[in-house]
Amino acid sequence: MSLEFEVSNTAESGGRRGELTLPHGVVQTPVFMPVGTAATVKAVPQSLLEEIGAGGKGAQIILANTYHLYLRPGHELVRRMGGVHRFMSWDRPMLTDSGGFQVFSLSSLRKVTTEGVEFRSHLDGSKHFFSPEHSMDVQIALGADIAMVFDECVETPATWERTRESMGLTHAWAQRSKDHFDAHQHLRPWGPEFDGKTQAQFGIVQGGMYADLRQESAERLVAMDFPGYAIGGLAVGEPRDVTREMIARTLEHLPKDKPRYVMGVGYPDEIEEYARMGVDMMDCVLPTRAGRHGLLFTSEGRLNIKKKDYAEDQGPIDATCSCMVCGRYTRAYLRHLFASGEPLSAVLNSIHNLAFYLDTMERVRNTLALT
Amino acid sequence: MSLEFEVSNTAESGGRRGELTLPHGVVQTPVFMPVGTAATVKAVPQSLLEEIGAGGKGAQIILANTYHLYLRPGHELVRRMGGVHRFMSWDRPMLTDSGGFQVFSLSSLRKVTTEGVEFRSHLDGSKHFFSPEHSMDVQIALGADIAMVFDECVETPATWERTRESMGLTHAWAQRSKDHFDAHQHLRPWGPEFDGKTQAQFGIVQGGMYADLRQESAERLVAMDFPGYAIGGLAVGEPRDVTREMIARTLEHLPKDKPRYVMGVGYPDEIEEYARMGVDMMDCVLPTRAGRHGLLFTSEGRLNIKKKDYAEDQGPIDATCSCMVCGRYTRAYLRHLFASGEPLSAVLNSIHNLAFYLDTMERVRNTLALT
Repeated sequence: MSLEFEVSNTAESGGRRGELTLPHGVVQTPVFMPVGTAATVKAVPQSLLEEIGAGGKGAQIILANTYHLYLRPGHELVRRMGGVHRFMSWDRPMLTDSGGFQVFSLSSLRKVTTEGVEFRSHLDGSKHFFSPEHSMDVQIALGADIAMVFDECVETPATWERTRESMGLTHAWAQRSKDHFDAHQHLRPWGPEFDGKTQAQFGIVQGGMYADLRQESAERLVAMDFPGYAIGGLAVGEPRDVTREMIARTLEHLPKDKPRYVMGVGYPDEIEEYARMGVDMMDCVLPTRAGRHGLLFTSEGRLNIKKKDYAEDQGPIDATCSCMVCGRYTRAYLRHLFASGEPLSAVLNSIHNLAFYLDTMERVRNTLALT
Repeated sequence: MSLEFEVSNTAESGGRRGELTLPHGVVQTPVFMPVGTAATVKAVPQSLLEEIGAGGKGAQIILANTYHLYLRPGHELVRRMGGVHRFMSWDRPMLTDSGGFQVFSLSSLRKVTTEGVEFRSHLDGSKHFFSPEHSMDVQIALGADIAMVFDECVETPATWERTRESMGLTHAWAQRSKDHFDAHQHLRPWGPEFDGKTQAQFGIVQGGMYADLRQESAERLVAMDFPGYAIGGLAVGEPRDVTREMIARTLEHLPKDKPRYVMGVGYPDEIEEYARMGVDMMDCVLPTRAGRHGLLFTSEGRLNIKKKDYAEDQGPIDATCSCMVCGRYTRAYLRHLFASGEPLSAVLNSIHNLAFYLDTMERVRNTLALT
């Protein structure tokens, strides 16, 4: 068993209330997944991450980035430490991306062939090569519950022809990813308590901003029969109605009984909207990255904590929020921490923003269960 | 009532097991006080600070720095926010220093007169003036349980003559600090639940590295009758046996029934040694500052987490430590966080080091109670 997915209710909008069972635990969907790039959700201690959000239930599943962990501390080291769960002391479900997006967005001097991608590390300029097979080797060494196929992320904007060509490469790589992944599952670094369980692998639909290519890509991947499907290549600068349109047109061609994951989105209203359209999983660095920059999400919109307006504001970030930050600290204090460059600023801002995201999804789940 | 102090046992070494009752709570002594410079113990959430150390009892009392809070966010703002306790959401005892040490160590272009010190902010170069009276106004606005007199910190090394001259100024300032503090206690920003309670003010013994001057300074301050006494001007670069000697020679001249506080020390073995000599209170930035630089304190000595030796070390920082970091994370993971510049590194390292300091004092208290 790698993954079980059960939809208990589907709303008229297409939104689904579901339950995703993974080797490391059960995830209520739709779900938002905090990003733990280097095996740490930036600035947030795991003990608090386990308690964030409504009811103190914490994050259900988090992400780690294959590209970052491959470069530092190295996937073989993580494997020797027992895999990424044990390495970072997080025993709930995890997902790793394929490294593709980071190779295309962070590294320099890329050379793409049908074989794979040669690139230089953003850390020290050293030369590396990622192929679908190598990405799978790395992801198996990390040992997250869900791994992603290695895909090419086309530059944006791109013509229909260029996008279709890139998509073709992505599909070939998806099949190679699948073959290599299935053949090497015995190498995952899990203890005997996980005997009989394996990592799951999701395919990634590409196709840029072209609905016909999205359909073609979805159909090709569905034919390969993955246990779950991601929609990639969105939220890369296109207008929001295009993002929504591409998601809608792709969802039509994905099986209803498998989880659907939109990668790298978004603002709170976006994750709510996409969840109501039938997206089951989403991830984004926004809550933590914005938090580090003093941007806080609230039920009344965004709030920039560095503003002078908040210097003597004795209220919490959000009066309707039940998170540990809103329960204890004033806007005045949080502004002071940010203005003073105090490390606690990133900790508390990140915790609030993550709680806001998790609570948003909890609320969506509750309404989807009823409709 | 500003302060009650009771010694329950005194060891042959001079070390005392005591209890210090302050408006915001009871402190078991000898005690180590974590430093919360800008109304935050750097990188540590208050909720974790309340749980740090053996038995999960947390820090009993913390410091905040008058100089830093005066400059940012400003003491009048803190007063309007209800004082430093409410501002930072910390309801246990607190102590503020006088700002003197920072004026002399951090700021530039100082001009000292008998009236006070003119200096420029290390933040923006703006010009400011601190007198004993002004330091008291600031400390009353902050409203910690214990305030310190404003003293001159003589440069080091300094001749006997220069030290004696400076000490004379410190004594005059101590009397002015006391008069102004007593006359303005009604301005402290405490709620009605603290009616009948006032802030306490400690005198500071100076005298550099000269035992005769230390004696003279102690006698002068004791004659002014403070509820507690600090020993200042130590740990400023002198050899450790000189520090110890100066503490020993000063303690002889301080009343046994009042708390004695050595400012700004030290390494774990130092705070243990001084506590066993009869020092009741100590503070130091070392556990948090060293933590941010990857230096960890353990029962087997210091450990530099950035060392390659720890890259695959699955053990905790200290196998005998019961802190939340040692209970959960490996040296390998902590090294990875440090090497990757992750903000969680400072959080976890600081928590462990503070726990180690608090546990050290807990152990000393336990032995002092028995002897």
